[in-house]
Amino acid sequence: MNSVYQARCQKAQQQMQAAGVEALLVGASADLRYLSGYAARPSERLTCFVLPTKGEPCMVIPAFEAPRLGEAPWFAVHTWTETENPIALVAQALGGVTGRTLAVGDRTWAGFLLRLQEALPGNQWLSATPLLRELRMIKSAEEIAALRAAGAAVDAIFQEMLTHPWVGRSERELGEEIASLMRRRGCEAVDFVIVGSGPNGASPHHANSNRLLQPGDAVVLNFGGPFRDGYYADITRTVVVGPPSAQLRRVYAVVQAAQEAGVRAVRPGMPCQEVDAAARQVIAQAGYGDYFAHRTGHGIGLDGHEEPYMVAGNTLPLAPGMTFSVEPGIYLPGQFGVRIEDIVVCTETGAERLNQASRELIEVR
Amino acid sequence: MNSVYQARCQKAQQQMQAAGVEALLVGASADLRYLSGYAARPSERLTCFVLPTKGEPCMVIPAFEAPRLGEAPWFAVHTWTETENPIALVAQALGGVTGRTLAVGDRTWAGFLLRLQEALPGNQWLSATPLLRELRMIKSAEEIAALRAAGAAVDAIFQEMLTHPWVGRSERELGEEIASLMRRRGCEAVDFVIVGSGPNGASPHHANSNRLLQPGDAVVLNFGGPFRDGYYADITRTVVVGPPSAQLRRVYAVVQAAQEAGVRAVRPGMPCQEVDAAARQVIAQAGYGDYFAHRTGHGIGLDGHEEPYMVAGNTLPLAPGMTFSVEPGIYLPGQFGVRIEDIVVCTETGAERLNQASRELIEVR
Repeated sequence: MNSVYQARCQKAQQQMQAAGVEALLVGASADLRYLSGYAARPSERLTCFVLPTKGEPCMVIPAFEAPRLGEAPWFAVHTWTETENPIALVAQALGGVTGRTLAVGDRTWAGFLLRLQEALPGNQWLSATPLLRELRMIKSAEEIAALRAAGAAVDAIFQEMLTHPWVGRSERELGEEIASLMRRRGCEAVDFVIVGSGPNGASPHHANSNRLLQPGDAVVLNFGGPFRDGYYADITRTVVVGPPSAQLRRVYAVVQAAQEAGVRAVRPGMPCQEVDAAARQVIAQAGYGDYFAHRTGHGIGLDGHEEPYMVAGNTLPLAPGMTFSVEPGIYLPGQFGVRIEDIVVCTETGAERLNQASRELIEVR
Repeated sequence: MNSVYQARCQKAQQQMQAAGVEALLVGASADLRYLSGYAARPSERLTCFVLPTKGEPCMVIPAFEAPRLGEAPWFAVHTWTETENPIALVAQALGGVTGRTLAVGDRTWAGFLLRLQEALPGNQWLSATPLLRELRMIKSAEEIAALRAAGAAVDAIFQEMLTHPWVGRSERELGEEIASLMRRRGCEAVDFVIVGSGPNGASPHHANSNRLLQPGDAVVLNFGGPFRDGYYADITRTVVVGPPSAQLRRVYAVVQAAQEAGVRAVRPGMPCQEVDAAARQVIAQAGYGDYFAHRTGHGIGLDGHEEPYMVAGNTLPLAPGMTFSVEPGIYLPGQFGVRIEDIVVCTETGAERLNQASRELIEVR
């Protein structure tokens, strides 16, 4: 396995060399796990992977957490005890030179960057994302297999939820059931569970409430988190409690067609924004353009949201191995929302869906 | 409620003025919730609360999430749509002047800080923590009540777990049961659940494994997360599967005495490091000093770990309203670990424990 991480670091070093960056620093985040294989928790105790453009990487880590790296990590390890200053260890690993260009992971905490900037003055600081973007965006067969397993897990959870009772139960209660099923199916940490019923579904990032589900409610279900090896699942389905109204059927059909159009637009070379445009056009032509206020999708991997983003203005061409969501929605304030989301992988010829759960409008009881 | 947040902002502004800081920027983090009342999720979509030293604060927020702020937020709201640049909105809120000192929340993502530094060149950037430390460290009666409720919730979960079967079940399985109970008792998000059995307990931040519990195992249980209003619980207890060995009884008694000594050391004016020293001395005198490799405690509130830290070198005097953990441990590599942790609040006369679960060595089956 180590050779996977070493190969990633070598590719990152090539990017760094081309960009004139002399070292890359990533704190506890998916960047760190991607490059080193170690899944650190973000914390006030600094864990930092330091990758110089030339030379061997090292991990700065709290001494009492070092056993978590296993017997023989493939990188150098610099531990710090509770009364030592980890920033000094990072600075030492980089040497005292000034006038360099250093890159920092976007999801490293700003507090660490500020301390690094103070400890290493006279250097230029850039985001690591341009250096890691291409690497992290294009998934290997192993990564896609992990994402496929994550997709299958949430598909099964959705399927199981359909057999549960819904009427008269609260969003929170149902959300708790979903979270519990996620953990039981190997989710490392439940990242989010949205149960947006009736008018609450009109807020795409609704926080579950004590509202009790009523007959006729559309219910937006959206849940995700890291499963196998830390790769994320993310799925949205919209169900209806009992028979749907004519309006809900109409809106649902539009979102379903938009989602299908988005998925069909996926192929190598297609700019990301065209996936957004394909889905959006269906919704706009049906007269609901003002009620689809978010982008159509986001990349997914070791982060739940990462590049590439399916959004107007993103001219990045799709390439085989990119994995992302296609999740258009229509949100009618005070009434209801409908969103349908699959994770897809761009293949040589189009898109493979990593979620297989039914996209038809399903009645729950 | 708004007056609570307005009063906090006014106090922060006084600190800022005294420190010569012209504006404070906090991204999605406990700082943002503390100052504004809004619980934003960290995300690649910037949510940023901007507090100038003089004048009214504003929230920069994705347009489609703005409804989550409620009907009439007490601060100005600047929304950005998916194709707009939120950094430009923040820069606009700050005005184009250079030569200023700006403070950024420590747990804001570095990627946003880098973009802000680029968009607002010629300014000095500092950590917001020195400005917010005192405010956030000293809890109000309402905050202490929330922490007390959080403590009662995890106490009850520990109590309930004692009635479950343990022998032959895996760390993961037991961890899942604890997580499920946490959610059912109102935990907003399960932050961590550690079940460190037998030799695994010797790693303080052990990641739960499929190891099955055996008679004689010491089991370190440590779990926490945000409960009422986002205030954290955090508890550690060590139990034994069946009758304990003489060695475990001996080590347990030392940790229990150390924890008691740490709690008894708490009183206003006492430097934080003395709480650490009081607990550490008991362990060192018993000959286990080398096996207690972490600090004795951390502050707790809207973050699971925050200031003040009970660690050697921290001369900050304790003050009434400070809330923190007292959690010494002994970790014998290859054998077992023992840790006992309570959250306490510093009162006018000493410490009040916010965890009441038994600290005796309990046998589970």
